[in-house]
Amino acid sequence: MYKGIKIKPPFFEIGPKAFFFGERMLKLAKAADIASQKYDVRIILTPQYTDIYRLAQETEHVLIFAQHMDSLPVGRGLGSVLPEAVKAAGAVGVMLNHVEKPMSIAELNKTIKRADEVGLVSIVCADTIEEAMAIAHFSPNIIVAEPTQLIGTGQPSDEKYIRETTAAIKKINPEIQVLQGAGISNGQDVYNVIKAGADATGTTSGIMKAPDPEAMLDEMIHAVRTAWDEVHKH
Amino acid sequence: MYKGIKIKPPFFEIGPKAFFFGERMLKLAKAADIASQKYDVRIILTPQYTDIYRLAQETEHVLIFAQHMDSLPVGRGLGSVLPEAVKAAGAVGVMLNHVEKPMSIAELNKTIKRADEVGLVSIVCADTIEEAMAIAHFSPNIIVAEPTQLIGTGQPSDEKYIRETTAAIKKINPEIQVLQGAGISNGQDVYNVIKAGADATGTTSGIMKAPDPEAMLDEMIHAVRTAWDEVHKH
Amino acid sequence: MYKGIKIKPPFFEIGPKAFFFGERMLKLAKAADIASQKYDVRIILTPQYTDIYRLAQETEHVLIFAQHMDSLPVGRGLGSVLPEAVKAAGAVGVMLNHVEKPMSIAELNKTIKRADEVGLVSIVCADTIEEAMAIAHFSPNIIVAEPTQLIGTGQPSDEKYIRETTAAIKKINPEIQVLQGAGISNGQDVYNVIKAGADATGTTSGIMKAPDPEAMLDEMIHAVRTAWDEVHKH
Amino acid sequence: MYKGIKIKPPFFEIGPKAFFFGERMLKLAKAADIASQKYDVRIILTPQYTDIYRLAQETEHVLIFAQHMDSLPVGRGLGSVLPEAVKAAGAVGVMLNHVEKPMSIAELNKTIKRADEVGLVSIVCADTIEEAMAIAHFSPNIIVAEPTQLIGTGQPSDEKYIRETTAAIKKINPEIQVLQGAGISNGQDVYNVIKAGADATGTTSGIMKAPDPEAMLDEMIHAVRTAWDEVHKH
Repeated sequence: MYKGIKIKPPFFEIGPKAFFFGERMLKLAKAADIASQKYDVRIILTPQYTDIYRLAQETEHVLIFAQHMDSLPVGRGLGSVLPEAVKAAGAVGVMLNHVEKPMSIAELNKTIKRADEVGLVSIVCADTIEEAMAIAHFSPNIIVAEPTQLIGTGQPSDEKYIRETTAAIKKINPEIQVLQGAGISNGQDVYNVIKAGADATGTTSGIMKAPDPEAMLDEMIHAVRTAWDEVHKH
Repeated sequence: MYKGIKIKPPFFEIGPKAFFFGERMLKLAKAADIASQKYDVRIILTPQYTDIYRLAQETEHVLIFAQHMDSLPVGRGLGSVLPEAVKAAGAVGVMLNHVEKPMSIAELNKTIKRADEVGLVSIVCADTIEEAMAIAHFSPNIIVAEPTQLIGTGQPSDEKYIRETTAAIKKINPEIQVLQGAGISNGQDVYNVIKAGADATGTTSGIMKAPDPEAMLDEMIHAVRTAWDEVHKH
Repeated sequence: MYKGIKIKPPFFEIGPKAFFFGERMLKLAKAADIASQKYDVRIILTPQYTDIYRLAQETEHVLIFAQHMDSLPVGRGLGSVLPEAVKAAGAVGVMLNHVEKPMSIAELNKTIKRADEVGLVSIVCADTIEEAMAIAHFSPNIIVAEPTQLIGTGQPSDEKYIRETTAAIKKINPEIQVLQGAGISNGQDVYNVIKAGADATGTTSGIMKAPDPEAMLDEMIHAVRTAWDEVHKH
Repeated sequence: MYKGIKIKPPFFEIGPKAFFFGERMLKLAKAADIASQKYDVRIILTPQYTDIYRLAQETEHVLIFAQHMDSLPVGRGLGSVLPEAVKAAGAVGVMLNHVEKPMSIAELNKTIKRADEVGLVSIVCADTIEEAMAIAHFSPNIIVAEPTQLIGTGQPSDEKYIRETTAAIKKINPEIQVLQGAGISNGQDVYNVIKAGADATGTTSGIMKAPDPEAMLDEMIHAVRTAWDEVHKH
């Protein structure tokens, strides 16, 4: 676990996947930059590799993460994503093992160690509680507990799932942060997940497919803050 | 075959793989920029994805290519390299099917079509004459005829191999350009390959592992020009 | 191209994929054995790897092929399918590069050479005319020209596609046989494809999902013979 | 965890990988069959898929396992290894996640569930203690604790590693059995590992590359029994 950056909850991950890139991505990143400061909510953005440098240069508050990287060392490996190159481009973290980019156990283990080594926050996806517990042994900074069957359905994780995954992960390593994913379509969904006790949540299609992505982003980050304050003010 | 850019021979490809990145890569790219103009030789650079934007911004003459990309359309696909994102970052081309990043036949065929569609020059690697002929049916802009067993050995392709691969590829599609790769360690090797009739060659370790990479780059590009002029002046 | 066995047209490929196995597969294989002799039509069966030995032992006329194999030599490689082991189990051939098991260009090229070396007929799938032409350079025994978009649709390839793919492949290597695949649901479809000039066709779901697979098998092999005789008797 | 078969310790795994197949494999399997009975040691054999049926038919005591299988259900999936087909061929178990056949976390989790469902003992490889602990959450029957760097070196795991991996795995699930792998070259190595407290060990190259594989097999199984009796008689 990389200790150089501690992402203070609440936080929110926006995953552009292969939807937004270039100028369109930059516009969204700038809106995220504003929302992050306005609502005091940390925002993780995972753009295409090719956008990392520019977004890192042109934003101040958002946390730029790579969508994936490989474990290889400096040297050969054409077509790879080198950890040192990700870091040098300005990323502060990396997502690993998303259901659309699955990794072998040994490779995931090695890549988390590489993230620690070069100084990148690691956020690792799991799609069952068992997998979240397994991954906890590799000590990533953050685990995304995201039941695969919900991805893109607009149906968020329920309170019981949130409580159980969080407890199961923290039992193995209490320092790991948990992001509750999948099924976030609007501000109300975000509110419900944070209100149910999550420290963090996130979305791809909720923002990417919204008629006005920047407005939806603002709505969601606002919802994070509102729910968080209700849970934590007392 | 993308017709928007025609790379005039002689040209030379420098493949940093996962050796150089960030500031070190930028330094090399600037040296390539100078050498390209000084010797009137086109230079293709294939940096890490994360360096494409910056190099495209900070160079004028070198041709920035991605090391690889996927065929997926805009949308889902976390961890992928989207053709539109590669183009938007400032790349003018893409390398495909390197021995360290092999592609299936169907995926290669589709990805070349995507390169054509978004406007990227495609440079595709083959490691036998048969494979070069097979790939010629997919009409990439450039084929790298690079016998795998020579990669990194410091032993360049011989004249017979150069003549035969070029003829075999041109017979299927005379518009495809041929880059003769593998085994280039110094200016003399470059000279020999161009003198033997090649339009283009390139290197990774010849420059990446040289004590002074920028000096070696200059030596090699100079050798391209010298050999080319000797072959073509009469 | 392995010259030890020449499959005389007309022939027909039945692909059980992961539908049939064990006793159920054996029953189908025995029905195929009878139909092959009854109609004088060669039948290729591609069972699960685990069924090759038993089917080879318990049938006389059908040609048992592996669904896939790897190019590795005897030695390490846990979880691989070794060419020598496929041959030793009694298979006479191997299918390669099916859309559900895509292979890289270099690996396909090597694996066809391994098939030649150990004495296995190679039947390689292509999903566009370009890919069929590319593959023809590797000299497999048979190419399956199977437009991917038709797989499982019940819509067979048309006469123009059949004529063009056959001509394109034969132009590169006239010894390669062509099997016209995809979209075969019943005897009428089989009749149409052979009547349109094909030497061979085949099916998976047409038989695997039929209410009575053995009856459908008989109907289809009968149709091969009927159409073939109509085309070739004059 | 499949409960239908309980492999009583001590036991020993022989991994022919792609070294032995067909008649040669059958000869070794018969020698294993004799040694298993003679020394009252359970022997797991993981032959090529194509040899499973024949070995299951022609042996009585050895436990035939597949080298790998996929998680897919009955249906499509050409080139796959279907769990139901493995079971129907006579295998009693399956090896998963060997370093030469790595699996993604989600796929491994699913495939262990499929093994449970069809009735196959699962033996899963891990190459670090962390990975062994991670995998323990998926409840396989057996975990192979095999430090990757030792595979094929002739240097066995030491007592401390054996004690720690066993304790770490049992803490997560005490029902999981642990096989201590890697680096077994002869009877003395086997003796040392069992004497150090292991319930099981195994080899590939120790037997496959021995001048007389059947004699080495006998030597190793004898060593299992001798060491086991010394540890357990008091």
